[in-house]
Parts: sequence; structure tokens; C-alpha cells
Amino acid sequence: MAVDGTDENNLEQGIYTKDAARLRKNDRRRRSLSDRSLSQKCGAWASHFQRLFVSFIGADWIFLMILGFIMAVFSFTMDIFVDLFTETHRWIYDLADSHVVLQYLAWVAYSLFLMCFAAGFANIVSVQAAGSGIPETKTSLRGVMLQEYFTFKTLVSKVISLTCVLGSELPVGKEGPFVHVGSVCAALLCKFMSLFSGIYKNKARNEEMLTVGCAVGIGCCFAAPIGGALFSLEVTSMFFVARNYWRGFLSATFGSFIFRLLPVWNRQEETLTALYATKYRLDFPFDLQELPIFAAMGIVCGFGGAFFVYLYGKISLFVKKQKATNSFLMKNCFLYSALVSVLISTLTFPPGFGQFMAGRLTQRDSLISFFDNRTWSNHCIVADFDHDDHLAAWKHPQANVFVILSAFVIMKFWMSALSITLPIPCGSFVPIFVIGAAFGRLVGEGLATLFPDGFNIDGHIYHIVPGAYAVIGAAALTAGVTHTISTGVIMMELTGQINYALPILISVILANMVSQSLQPSIYDTVIRIKKLPYLPMLSWGHREKYDIYVEDFMKREVRYITLNSTYRDVIKILRSGNLKTLPLVKSAESMLLLGSVERAQLLGLLMQRLQHLREENASTMPVRYKVHFQTSTEESASASTTKPLKSALKKPSVDEEEITSVYDSGLNLKKFFCSRPDIEAMEVRHPAHTNVLQKFTEWEEQQMDEQVNFNSCKIDPAPFQLVERTSLHKTHTMFSVLNLDYAYVTSIGRLVGVVSLKELREAIEGCMPADGVRLRPVMSTFRDRGVRGTRTETIELHQLLEHQIS
Amino acid sequence: MAVDGTDENNLEQGIYTKDAARLRKNDRRRRSLSDRSLSQKCGAWASHFQRLFVSFIGADWIFLMILGFIMAVFSFTMDIFVDLFTETHRWIYDLADSHVVLQYLAWVAYSLFLMCFAAGFANIVSVQAAGSGIPETKTSLRGVMLQEYFTFKTLVSKVISLTCVLGSELPVGKEGPFVHVGSVCAALLCKFMSLFSGIYKNKARNEEMLTVGCAVGIGCCFAAPIGGALFSLEVTSMFFVARNYWRGFLSATFGSFIFRLLPVWNRQEETLTALYATKYRLDFPFDLQELPIFAAMGIVCGFGGAFFVYLYGKISLFVKKQKATNSFLMKNCFLYSALVSVLISTLTFPPGFGQFMAGRLTQRDSLISFFDNRTWSNHCIVADFDHDDHLAAWKHPQANVFVILSAFVIMKFWMSALSITLPIPCGSFVPIFVIGAAFGRLVGEGLATLFPDGFNIDGHIYHIVPGAYAVIGAAALTAGVTHTISTGVIMMELTGQINYALPILISVILANMVSQSLQPSIYDTVIRIKKLPYLPMLSWGHREKYDIYVEDFMKREVRYITLNSTYRDVIKILRSGNLKTLPLVKSAESMLLLGSVERAQLLGLLMQRLQHLREENASTMPVRYKVHFQTSTEESASASTTKPLKSALKKPSVDEEEITSVYDSGLNLKKFFCSRPDIEAMEVRHPAHTNVLQKFTEWEEQQMDEQVNFNSCKIDPAPFQLVERTSLHKTHTMFSVLNLDYAYVTSIGRLVGVVSLKELREAIEGCMPADGVRLRPVMSTFRDRGVRGTRTETIELHQLLEHQIS
Repeated sequence: MAVDGTDENNLEQGIYTKDAARLRKNDRRRRSLSDRSLSQKCGAWASHFQRLFVSFIGADWIFLMILGFIMAVFSFTMDIFVDLFTETHRWIYDLADSHVVLQYLAWVAYSLFLMCFAAGFANIVSVQAAGSGIPETKTSLRGVMLQEYFTFKTLVSKVISLTCVLGSELPVGKEGPFVHVGSVCAALLCKFMSLFSGIYKNKARNEEMLTVGCAVGIGCCFAAPIGGALFSLEVTSMFFVARNYWRGFLSATFGSFIFRLLPVWNRQEETLTALYATKYRLDFPFDLQELPIFAAMGIVCGFGGAFFVYLYGKISLFVKKQKATNSFLMKNCFLYSALVSVLISTLTFPPGFGQFMAGRLTQRDSLISFFDNRTWSNHCIVADFDHDDHLAAWKHPQANVFVILSAFVIMKFWMSALSITLPIPCGSFVPIFVIGAAFGRLVGEGLATLFPDGFNIDGHIYHIVPGAYAVIGAAALTAGVTHTISTGVIMMELTGQINYALPILISVILANMVSQSLQPSIYDTVIRIKKLPYLPMLSWGHREKYDIYVEDFMKREVRYITLNSTYRDVIKILRSGNLKTLPLVKSAESMLLLGSVERAQLLGLLMQRLQHLREENASTMPVRYKVHFQTSTEESASASTTKPLKSALKKPSVDEEEITSVYDSGLNLKKFFCSRPDIEAMEVRHPAHTNVLQKFTEWEEQQMDEQVNFNSCKIDPAPFQLVERTSLHKTHTMFSVLNLDYAYVTSIGRLVGVVSLKELREAIEGCMPADGVRLRPVMSTFRDRGVRGTRTETIELHQLLEHQIS
Repeated sequence: MAVDGTDENNLEQGIYTKDAARLRKNDRRRRSLSDRSLSQKCGAWASHFQRLFVSFIGADWIFLMILGFIMAVFSFTMDIFVDLFTETHRWIYDLADSHVVLQYLAWVAYSLFLMCFAAGFANIVSVQAAGSGIPETKTSLRGVMLQEYFTFKTLVSKVISLTCVLGSELPVGKEGPFVHVGSVCAALLCKFMSLFSGIYKNKARNEEMLTVGCAVGIGCCFAAPIGGALFSLEVTSMFFVARNYWRGFLSATFGSFIFRLLPVWNRQEETLTALYATKYRLDFPFDLQELPIFAAMGIVCGFGGAFFVYLYGKISLFVKKQKATNSFLMKNCFLYSALVSVLISTLTFPPGFGQFMAGRLTQRDSLISFFDNRTWSNHCIVADFDHDDHLAAWKHPQANVFVILSAFVIMKFWMSALSITLPIPCGSFVPIFVIGAAFGRLVGEGLATLFPDGFNIDGHIYHIVPGAYAVIGAAALTAGVTHTISTGVIMMELTGQINYALPILISVILANMVSQSLQPSIYDTVIRIKKLPYLPMLSWGHREKYDIYVEDFMKREVRYITLNSTYRDVIKILRSGNLKTLPLVKSAESMLLLGSVERAQLLGLLMQRLQHLREENASTMPVRYKVHFQTSTEESASASTTKPLKSALKKPSVDEEEITSVYDSGLNLKKFFCSRPDIEAMEVRHPAHTNVLQKFTEWEEQQMDEQVNFNSCKIDPAPFQLVERTSLHKTHTMFSVLNLDYAYVTSIGRLVGVVSLKELREAIEGCMPADGVRLRPVMSTFRDRGVRGTRTETIELHQLLEHQIS
């Protein structure tokens, strides 16, 4: 029902209303049954309560709260297991402190084992679990629904593999995968809820719920409901619907609430606070003189973010090329993961190079130490280092803090870019976050060393807060990589302090401006590398989009049904493709478009016909075979008619096969009847009967050539229509805004073609530069300004006339 | 060019591209001129720099920053003047402390004077300045552009009146008007920038900029860029465009930055902090046991918000009725304002009843005291009261804190509802905010009294923080009145603390759920009461929307032009209405829709024709009159042809009159020529010439009946089309999403009608309940669940056939 395009439309109409009708019908049937029974009132009440229950379950907020709750539990449980894994890692490592080689083996082997298990599990259970999941969700929301990405198998595979990967201490994050997990949960929950309420069978509505799933994913990952809701909107949509914004907020708020409540109940924390709560001074957060430094950090992070995306792209393409040529690597899908795991854990081995890059800290520990309120380079407070286990990692007798921080930034940068190319569930958000925080800390410590006395404002001395620089660096670098502003908001919610709001926003915006003008975002890069079927944006600079019209790229061979179509035609058309709706034209000659009919409706018509034929068949048969046939008809009716008739509306793909095998153009009912063993036996015993069957076959053939009676068929009288002269630009906008799957092209009411997302995508890619699809960043209003507004959609009369009147 | 509907479409095309083309043409002309001069290179460079300058000025971010800067300066200056006014008020009041009557007169007269000045100024300069401005902005963005609301006069009127109103200490806010001021600034800035870059002449783009103006308004009012950007999206749009979200963020961030920077430069503050920076403890913001109380506050605030809207509606309607019947009140538009001002200032008179409701505090002072970190009811700290001027207002020898707070809440509640009905610029946001904070403080103080020992968690004693309750109460009540979630975000940015994020969000969501199910938001109520031309939402519960088709409400009398139209026809059509685009059909018989032509294009055709006729006229005239006519032709050409030809593309309404007066159906060119005094004189002197002129008239008449040559006319080949059977529901969605102004209705390619916003609005209102337009709240997915999904857009064949094939 995507003809009408918008979600709101879809929400209330379409095939799914049938289920609601069926539910109500059941109610009524049950009611009429109870009328017959003694307890009339009782039955009425029961059905009333059932309806109440259905409408209760159908309410959005119930769904949203359940979703939030499930995701919170997932996130919390995963955190516990990851902690368990990392603690075990430390424990084994400490246990093997007798010899450094033993220690090294323990350090590397543990990571390797978890890594191989994760890669294997992801590979065996569901390959779709690999990677971040945000690009796939984005594609599903704005292009083609990648059904296989939203299954229970993928969920299990993703959650378990991700826990192991995080436990192995690879520099990857859980944020991207959690967006995916949230979407899968939303999709599965929709499926589950559809058992209770028909509204959950609406495809468009469920797609909207995927957006909510994204918001909840981030909300539960960082306990950042506002940032999560905004991030999901920024990353997944080009046009927001107000409804989704509310849903995202509600669900993410409830999710983060539960996510922060569970540790309190679990006695891990005293009360609900931010995940990485900071305690920077409130009265004087920063001096005006620091603002240019924050802005410069934003610009540097913009370049850094763009470089990260570039590096990731290069590594990905290199690995892809290797895989294609190197059969050994292709066969052993673990090998690549294992190699990377060994490389990274070797480098982070604490007594080895790891001592120069705080190798023994987990990502969480690193973040906590970066956001620390104390100044490391200030030697007055250096005594603290010995008391705090996290801070001690940054202290080294041979190297000062700056060397270690620099090594950390550089090593983690390429390690993260490498890690997220692995075929395992992995997010890029958190590692980037950590690198940004380290960079910020580096800048902050440097400034604290340069200005050890801080600022003297009206007699008060205010020292520089290096932790705040870490906060700003983390927000800016993540913004540079993901091309979002909401990372700033996530940062504020994550640290529980908003008094750095202005510096954070300024650096985030600058980072965005720089990185968007250099590279597409990491998610768009993945979409491009994985060649996902995403509807690309039209960039401002392409004049071609006004010169290309629908007629240039529409599909002219439209499969249609006419008012005069026979059953044979309909079967042929249904078998010839997988279209969900078919256009209905007046006749093949006039091609006047009357409307569109859904596949399920046509299948229903065919089933009716089958039923009808069997009844007639039974009445015209000789009496002695009638018994046989009647039995078989009844059996078959119960076996294949009633069941598929019911399921027809549910799963067209299943009964479609059934019907087309029955109604095969060459072998019609005969084959169906003959395939039944008793009939076959009869045929063998009484060869004369073959003659009778032959007659029926002929009769059947005649019946097949009868015109379809569309009277009981629901027709959409106003499918979405374009004219041949609609420009590519306008078509793209309409498809984007109305979320269309296809549109018919008409000329003076005659159906002349059809445009689906596929054709549109090809047309857009065709008019793009040869170096691949240039995905237009959201903020690209900041460039390509000069060529704007120079083209028009109008044409001149002679062009129009030569076209239309001819 | 709203045919194609979406903003993105409009952004690059349409008539405005002409201006860009013209600009380029000018460039080229200038370049060719400079070629002739000696310094060829110099000229080329100049034009290059000019183009660079134009593209620089055309860049979004320049515009957004300028807008942010202007609004910040406005907001800061206004705050200074308001402070000045209130300080003068206190000064006069203190000066008159010799006698209470004198003091009373000083207190009341000052307010009355400012109030009358504000009402008078608003009334005389621009009536559009009255009221909040958010409903009008909302209407302009989603319905009909209310042009008169976005003029310089309105800006001046609004800013000056608002300053006086705020200075008079009426319980109104500057937030709503600032949204309006921001929009006006955006609109005026667009106009100004259009002098430099053609892109700023695009209407749709400028409408988008209004949304940015809203964001900046709030951003600069509260120094809350994130909340501002979100609030503007929530309040103004049903569908967000990602682009606007970014623009809003950028502009609001820069605006709030400047707004907070100015006080630092002005030596009023040390550094950039939040506007009402709070200093609640960070380590343990609240206990779990307090959460149910926060939730309950949310629910109570939801009821309170709904009641406030109800009260406002009742007062408004009552006043409106009185005005209609009471001619005295109608004549004296100040009287109502003056009466209310006297009433309110009498009640707040500090030595009078004001002593029981902290009457001497301004709104800002009240807010500061509500958010105070100390507990008032705790007698240990009561000594602070004497040292702090703000807190002292809440201390009274006869009444305790609870009585004063309760009195404050109750009195301010109706005072605010009354004040915002006045015909002056006034916002409801801040007064509601203050009431909510007072309510929250009341609850907090109550709890602090009930649990004086606070909570004992793991040996630590944590006292209740009543200030935090004030924060949550303020957010929840405002959310209840405005039906937005972003008030929670604004609250966090306003206080500079985010550690109450979860309680704030929970109470805000609950308040929204409660109040949305009871009443429309305050802005929707204003729209309803003022009967603004806003396209209402279709509520879920209305089944009629599926039974009503386009054919039921479309306008069948379409004014169209055909390929065979004569000049006379075109003039007639142009004169008959004010349509911006006209459909072009093949012939009046076939009515096949070929495309649409803009009014300006047709005017251009007419001007060409006029030019052509004059030239011919001059060549066929007797030589001795030729001189006369040539002179007059040249004069008229310079006077009326060249100029309007240029301005035709700018202001169709101006030259339209000119042309239609020239090309009048009865009195054609003759009248034009004859009206020239020299010709008239000639006619008198040589009566024979009348005959010659008569001939020309006849010849002119013939010329008028010639067919129009559309060859040089730009035609949009794909205007937006609907079919007759498109349902009201689908039409509404398409108009909303694509932001259409009108759509043609076709049947088998034939133009049968047109639907504009007006028809659509009437159709929607027609199918609504009799008690007026029920505006569907955003969160109404929380109700009307039962009836969802029960209707379908499809129809049955026999309905379709009887309709379409007949």
C-alpha cells in the first residue's frame, strides 16, 4: 500500500485493515455463539474486554515502553557480561605473572579465543550480524527493506557476538550494533504484537518503529534519551515525522530510565546519575579566551574525522580486493579477524608497547580517566596517580603524559579504523569517542602546562580544566565522523553536565562543516562500500536532474491487468513477477488507468474461482466418481483451500506457489486432482475414466479463458501517478518525501510506464560523477552555492507539443 | 511554483531562477562593457569577485550567523531596557514612601502608563504585533502566508511595545513574541539579502528561514540553542526537513553565544554561563523514592496546563463577545488593557495584597528565588532570608512560605491567563514557567518539611532539594500548556544542569500525555479563536475522511487557458482572479491538461504583444501623426513598457493593473493613446483624426482576437495532479507533506477541477464535529486507538466503473 506513500496514510488502510475486520468478525462470531449459550451477558462482557485488551495492546505507548524495557535489560545484561569477560581477562593475566611470555600468551590467547568465537558465531548463525548495523537500518528506512537484517537469528547472533567482541577488548563500540539491535527488537516486537492487534501488521508503521528502535538503542547504550532520539532522526531520516520524534523520546526516556535503574537495584550505584558523570565547576566553566581553542579543536577534529572515514574506506576496499583475489583469506573467514586480534592485543600488551599507550585500560576506564577532574601534568597532584588505578596507567617513568597520550591517539586511530572493517558486530562510535577524548585531554594538559596559573578574573584564580577539553574533543571528533550534531547532546547527557553546552555545540558544528565538505559520513561510506540499495541524495550541483525526465528512465514494459483479462492472464502475470500491486487498465488498447489492485486481492479472486470450479465440477460429474471427487475435493478444500485462503492475506508468497502450481497454465485442475493417490489408483484400475478426466481438463481450459469478475475485488482508485515530463529532481523529491515504492506514469490518462525505487536509483546514479555515488551530506548547503537556482523545471511549448500532442 | 510542492523543489526553480539569470546577464553585460574599456583584465576580475561575493552572501551560514547576531543584540538590548524600566519603577515606588496612597499611585500609574503606551503603539503602528506570534508563524508555515505579519512595521511595533509591556511588569513573557520577532527578522533579512543573491527571492526557501527565525528567537531568549531548535520544529512543523534542523541549530547556537557574550563584554558577568545557572549537587541529584513524586507532579501539571488553556479560551471568547456587543469597549481599545493593568498592579502592590504573593519581585527575580539552592521552610537557614533581597519577599510575619507560595500560584494563574488575552505583544511561556516553578517549589518545600532529615543512603545524609522540584514543575507545566517535549531541554539549558534529565523528561512526557488528551495546545487554541487559516490535522477517529473524495470538494469552475486562447481571453482570465499559475489545456472541448503557466509568464506575453502592436501601429500610421505617436510610443515605452517589463517578474500585482487597464476588453490601445494629453489636444484641433483613431481601434479589436503565441512561454509540464477518486485523507497528507498550495484534478487526462488549500480546509472542517475544528494533538496516538485501521482507501469495481467509465 505504498501507493499513497506516506506513513500516515499507510497506517490506517490497506490489506491490514482486513485483519482488524477479521478480528472484529471473530468477535462477532464469538458473540453470536455466546448468545446461544446460557450466559449471554458473560460472553458479551468477555468480548468487550477482549476488544479493550486489543485496543490497549494496540496503543503506541505500551509498545514503546516494552521496547524500552527490553533494550534496557539487553544493554544492562551485556554490560555485566562484558565486565565479567574483561575482569576474567585481567585475572588470567595477573595469574600468569610468573613469566612475561606466559603473561603475553594469556593476554593474547584470551582475546583471540573470544574474537574467534564471536566471528564464528556471527558467521554461522547470521552473517547479517556483522558490522555496525546503522547503514543497514538507514537503507531499510530510506530504500529497500532488508528483511533478513531484522530476524530473531540476527538478533541472537548480534547480541552474543557483540558481547564476546567487547569482552575481547578490541577497540570497537556497542553503539552502532545497539541501534541495529534496537531496530530488530522493534521489528520482532511488532511481529509479536500483531498477534494481538491488527495495527501491527501495517508495514509502514513497523518501518516507523524501526526509527524508534534506533533511538532506544542509543538511549539505552549511553543513557542519553534526548541525544538518542535526535541521533536516530539525524542518521536515519531526511524528513522527520513529528510522530516519530515523540515516540523516540518516550521510548528512549523509559529505556534509559530502566537502564540506569537496574544498577541501583543491583546495588552497584546509589542513585540515577549520568553514565560518565563529571563534576566540573559550575560557577566558571570556561574563560572567553578558551573559546578560540575550542573552535580550533572543532576544526582539527573535523579534519581528523574526515581522515578516519578515508582511512576506513581505504582499508575496507583493500580487504575486499584481497578477499576477492585471495582464495585462502576467503575460505578462512576467521583468519582475518584472528590476525587483527593478535596484532592489536600484542600492541596493547601492558608490559610491552602497551605501557606507552595505557594498554591495560578498557575503553570505559580510559574514558573515566580522560574525563577526570584533576590535571595530570600538574605535578602538585601527581600523588593522586598512585592511589587511582586508572590514572596510574598514564604515568610512566620514561615517558611523560604527553607522549603516552599522543601514542594512544595515534595507535587507537588506526586500530579502530582497522577493527571496524572486521566481519563481526562492531560500532565505530565509542572508539572514536575515546580517541577524541584523548586528543582533547592532550590539548587540555598542554594548555594547563602552558598556563599553570590559569586565569585571574576579578581576583579569582580559575585553573584550566583538561577534562572539559576531553569532553569537547570527544564530541567534536565523533561529530566529524558521523556528521551529526546530536553527538554534542549525547555528550552532555553522558557526562551529566551541560555548562559546556556552547563550546561543545560550536566545536561540533565546526567539525561538521569541515568534515562534511571533505568526506561522506562513516555510515554513507559503508553504504557505498557494501553497495547497499540506498536511495542517494541528489546533490545541488547536478544540472542533469532537470534535464532528465521520467520518460527517460521509466520502465515501459508494465505488467498490467485489464477489465477483460482472463484467469489465465492473471495467473500468468502473477507468476511473471513479484509485484505487490498491479495496475488495472480499461483495455489493452486504450490503456486507461483505472486503479491498482493488490496481489493478495487477485489471489483471493483466484481462490474463489477454484472453489467455484470444484463445486461445479462435483455437480456435473457422474455419480459414481462423484463420491471420490467429493471426498478428494473436501480433503483438498480443507487441505489447500481453506488454509491458504486464510493465510493468503498473511503470507502471499507461500500460497502463491500453491495456487500457481494448481492453476498452472498447462496443467490445471486435472493435475491437482490426479496427483491425489486415490484418483491415480482409480485411473489405473479404470482406464476409461481417463476419458472423463480428459473432458474435465477441456472444460477446465475453457473456464480458464473466462474473464475475471472483479466485482468482489478492492481497487485503489488513485494510485500515485506521474506524467512523462516530470523531472528527475521532482520525482526524487516525491519519492523521498512520500516514501513511495513506485509510481505509475500516465499520459493523458493512459498508462505508459512505471517508476520504482530501482529505476530511480539507477537514474540518479547514472547522472552522478563516474567515481561513484557522491552522497550529499546534510550540511552541504554550505557549498555548491554558486550553481544553485540556475535551472528551471519548466520547458517551452514547442518541446511540450512535439511530445504530447503528437 | 508550489506545484511541485516541496521546499527542496522550490528552492532551485521557478520564477526566481530568472532573477539569478538576470543577475548573471547583468554580470555578462558588465563584463562585455568592461571588455570595451582599456582595463579588460581589471573588469574581468571585478566581475569574478562580484560573483564570489554573491555566492558568499548566498551561503546559508552567513545568513544564519547574521540572523543569530541580530536577534542576540535585540534580546540583549531589550533585557537592558526592561531592567531599566523595572528599576525605575522600584525607584519611583521607593521615592514615594512617604505615604501609602502616594506609593500606590506611583506603583499603579507607572505600570498603567507603560501599558497604555505599549497598547497604543502596537495599535497605531501595526495591529499584527499583538499577541504571541507563534500561532501566526505556525499558520504561515503550514497554511496561508500571512504577509502583513512579517513587515518592518510589525517588527518595530512588536519590539518597542514588548519592551514596555515587560517593563510594566504584567505577567507575560518575551518568548512567544521573540519567536515572531525572529521570524520577521528572518523574512526581512531574506528581503535584504535578495539585493545581493537571487536565491533569496525564492519564497519557499524564505518560508524555511522562518522556522530558523523561530529557533533563533527562543535560542536568544533563553540562551537555549538545542531547546530552541527543537521547540521551533515541534511547534511549527508536522514534518521536519533535516536541513531546517541544521540551520536552526547553527543559527540558534551562534545567537545564544552572542547573547551570553554581550553581558560578559558589558562587564555584567564573568563568563558564559546558563541564564538561570543552578548549583545543585552533582553526586546525588535525587533519590529513587522521589521519582513517583516527580511523576505525580507531571500528571498534576498536565491537568493544570489543560485548565490554563481552557481558562484562556473562556476569557478570550468572553472578551470577544463583549467587544462585539459593547460598543464602548470596542471604541476604546486601550480601556481593556488599562483596566487589566490597574487590576493586576493593584493586586501586586507590595504593601497591599502583594505582600502575600511576593508582589515586588519581577518574574526574573521570582525564578531566581525559586531555583535557589536553599530550603526556605528549613528554619536553620532562615537567617539567609534577611541577607537576600529576593528571598525576603517570601518571608512574612503573618503567613508562612506555603501560604505565600499558594497565593502566588493561584493569583498568577488567572492573572497570566487574563494578561495574554490583551491586544499587546505577550507570550505565555515565561508566566507559565514561573507558575510551574512556584508549584514545584511548593511541593519541594512541603516534602522538605515532611522529611526534614532527608534520605540516608549508605551512611550519607541527602536532603531534599526544593529548587530541583521548582525546575521540574516549571518544565512540566510549560509542557502541559505548549504540548512540547523540548521545554524539558530548554529547562536544562536554562539552569545549566542536566543531572535532573530523567525526572524532567518523565514529568514532561506525563504532562503532555494528560494535557493533550484534554485540550489542544495554547497555540492551537489561539489559532481556533482567531480563526487563522491553518490547515487542521485530520484526527484519527474520523471515518468520513475515507468516504470523501476530491470530487466532492474540488472547485469545478477552473479558470484555464487553451492553446486557442486569444489575447482577449487571457486578459479576461488574468483580470478575473489572482491565481499565480493557470492551467493550460489543449482545447476547451478536450480539456486535456498540458501543463501550467505562471501569471508572470502570461503578463510577459502580453507585454511583448503590446510592444509588437505599437511597432506595427507606428508603421501603418499616416506620417504626420506618426511623429506624435512615435514620441508618445517611445515615452510610453519608457514609461510603461520597459519598466513594467522589468518589474513584471518582480511584482506581478503592480504591473498587472497597468496592463489590464491598457488591455481593457472594451477600451483597448485607443484609450491608452487618447489619454495622452497631446493626442487629446490633437483630436480637438483636427476632428477628422477621430476617424483615423476609430480605424485603429477596429484594427486593435481584431488584433485582440488573435490567438496567443505561447512559443516563448515557459510551461511547467508536470503540475501536481490528483484524480477524482483521491480520498480526503490522501489529499490532506499530500498537501501537508509536499506543502502544496493547489493541485489540479484530472480524469483520464482531462482537467475537471482544482483543489486549493481553501477547498481542502473547508472539506476538513465540514467533516469535523460541529463544535469547531478539533485540532489533533501530536501525541494523540495515545488515544482514539480503537477505531484505527478500520477503513480502507480502496473501493469496489462497480463504484469505480459507474464513476469512471460512464
